[in-house]
Amino acid sequence: MKIDARHYRTIWPDPDQPSTICIIDQRLLPHRFVIEKLTKLEDVLRAIKDMYVRGAGLIGATAGFGMFLAASRAGEKNFDMEMAEAGRKLCTCRPTAENLGWAVKRVLRAMETEQTVSRKREIAFVEACAIADEDAEFCRKIGLHGLPLIETIGKKKNGRPVNILTHCNAGWLAFVDFGSATAPIYAARDAGIPLHVWVDETRPWNQGSRLTAWELQQEGINNTLITDNAGGHLMQRGDVDLVIVGTDRTTCTGDVANKIGTYLKALAAWDNNVPFYVALPSSTFDWSLEDGRDIPIEERSGDEITKVTGLTAKGKMETVEIAAPGTRTVNYSFDVTPARLVTGLITERGIIKACKSAICSAFPDRF
Amino acid sequence: MKIDARHYRTIWPDPDQPSTICIIDQRLLPHRFVIEKLTKLEDVLRAIKDMYVRGAGLIGATAGFGMFLAASRAGEKNFDMEMAEAGRKLCTCRPTAENLGWAVKRVLRAMETEQTVSRKREIAFVEACAIADEDAEFCRKIGLHGLPLIETIGKKKNGRPVNILTHCNAGWLAFVDFGSATAPIYAARDAGIPLHVWVDETRPWNQGSRLTAWELQQEGINNTLITDNAGGHLMQRGDVDLVIVGTDRTTCTGDVANKIGTYLKALAAWDNNVPFYVALPSSTFDWSLEDGRDIPIEERSGDEITKVTGLTAKGKMETVEIAAPGTRTVNYSFDVTPARLVTGLITERGIIKACKSAICSAFPDRF
Repeated sequence: MKIDARHYRTIWPDPDQPSTICIIDQRLLPHRFVIEKLTKLEDVLRAIKDMYVRGAGLIGATAGFGMFLAASRAGEKNFDMEMAEAGRKLCTCRPTAENLGWAVKRVLRAMETEQTVSRKREIAFVEACAIADEDAEFCRKIGLHGLPLIETIGKKKNGRPVNILTHCNAGWLAFVDFGSATAPIYAARDAGIPLHVWVDETRPWNQGSRLTAWELQQEGINNTLITDNAGGHLMQRGDVDLVIVGTDRTTCTGDVANKIGTYLKALAAWDNNVPFYVALPSSTFDWSLEDGRDIPIEERSGDEITKVTGLTAKGKMETVEIAAPGTRTVNYSFDVTPARLVTGLITERGIIKACKSAICSAFPDRF
Repeated sequence: MKIDARHYRTIWPDPDQPSTICIIDQRLLPHRFVIEKLTKLEDVLRAIKDMYVRGAGLIGATAGFGMFLAASRAGEKNFDMEMAEAGRKLCTCRPTAENLGWAVKRVLRAMETEQTVSRKREIAFVEACAIADEDAEFCRKIGLHGLPLIETIGKKKNGRPVNILTHCNAGWLAFVDFGSATAPIYAARDAGIPLHVWVDETRPWNQGSRLTAWELQQEGINNTLITDNAGGHLMQRGDVDLVIVGTDRTTCTGDVANKIGTYLKALAAWDNNVPFYVALPSSTFDWSLEDGRDIPIEERSGDEITKVTGLTAKGKMETVEIAAPGTRTVNYSFDVTPARLVTGLITERGIIKACKSAICSAFPDRF
């Protein structure tokens, strides 16, 4: 991923300071580019809860490094108990995100095989780095597997750009690199296919207007910001060739929990015969769940709806209240798109149908 | 309609000054309640274009009074030509709004029957007042015809509130009084039925958070503000009993142009077996159109998407930029919900099916 033409990941160990993890404070984008340093578990909990970092893969990678930071400060005496407690705290930060628990368990399991605390600390770092590297590599593969979809549409369009709609940010900012929904887009750009992306602004946190539009601009991808309300109309007009979104948790039957509003876009795609794909590394599958209705849906503060932060004409960051005082709100962060509305899942092992048998066949080692 | 417990209409002739029309500057709501006085055509054009006033019925009523203000200033010599020109200017202010052209034609036709300019001026005022009175009366009747729908659901709920979802503002702020989508809600409140309204914030102009939530608060109706993305999830949870929206233009076959995003809610209602009703006075029908795809869709400035105005912590009105500089936008203001997704049309003559034969039967005098 590129920021001002320089290569970055979204999370990395500080090369100059031990036990220090660097992230980008995504709350300030696109107005300010600030690197935040995390040195203890509490920093990580705050970073995940308050959404300095967000997005399936990046939450997982941050949780992995959070376990490493906890390990590096945990006392020798109650080390295992302290680590179990750190894992529990991390897991409750964001209830819908599958990668969170997955990454925590992975570091805990890696440490189990070691006898000494110093080795456990070492292995926690190695495992956290492996989670981050694997996330980037899986997203790169998602790009390669998704590329033919865009190529096929591109051929039919005779040089006109392929119009792809995406919701929220499932870009490199949501992962360690490449992104899930954006990986096929970046692969298509590299393959020279003309592209244009419709970016849903994604209320209430505006991941689309603040992150995806900015990320695509940094990568030189032609894009247009729209309200979340507009996608159906664009599909009716024939202005959307393909929808690709990410997911925060996917059942083994192919039901997809993703940012609130995804379900509405899936319905519109279905009503207008637009292919609707969900891109995910396998770390986002919840192998234990058969029914999307059982996925816990996070409820966040209503302030996300009634308050908006941006830049004033004088370039100052300012928060404004847009509703009347005393307005009551409910703020569910995710909804569930039933598998019947999903054309296919783009994974690191290829494109598969959103049904249990296909998911089983592609990931027999995970059941 | 009530504001701070005092009765208002949304537009009225100033009782103290001749040829002066009062409106509420809806751009400043809910933060400031400012009455704006219109004295010439240019004031009216600005008020409609820049959305001091908006909403099907209120745009029509404002256009009617705009014709009166134009008449009161037009020269004796080229009176008819000046009035035709005033009508043309009014009609191009908002392309999707059917009531605009309807009101202009109605005043022009009324003036045709008069011989002298002074009588034409008088009749323009009489006709503009009649348009406003009729709008209020038709909305009141929409309330009476819609009430049994809510009553029937209320009986099944055994005292629990009937949950109604609405998009945009089709409340009294969008009409002269009562509103279209809200009229059955106010009628149900008066009938003592427990109610709760889900208010879509309605990006980009936030008619929901700024106007509908405020209007319902003023009327003491229990309501919760949600993002436009949330409605599908709420319907999946069974938390929506009924959807009622307004419309800016409806074909004689029952296709409905309403605020962008309405189509997405109609799809979700259809997918979850939630009744989806559209409330409209007959002035919103376009009797000449058979296919919703032929309705012109207004495109507004992208600033509505990238800039948000609200109150700072210090109580100052401030506009903030929420996207990166140079972000490209497209801002369609309406979409078309096909008749097949509409359960029924609530009109001043009763509830009718969204199909040509039913519309013909209810309004044989209009074809």
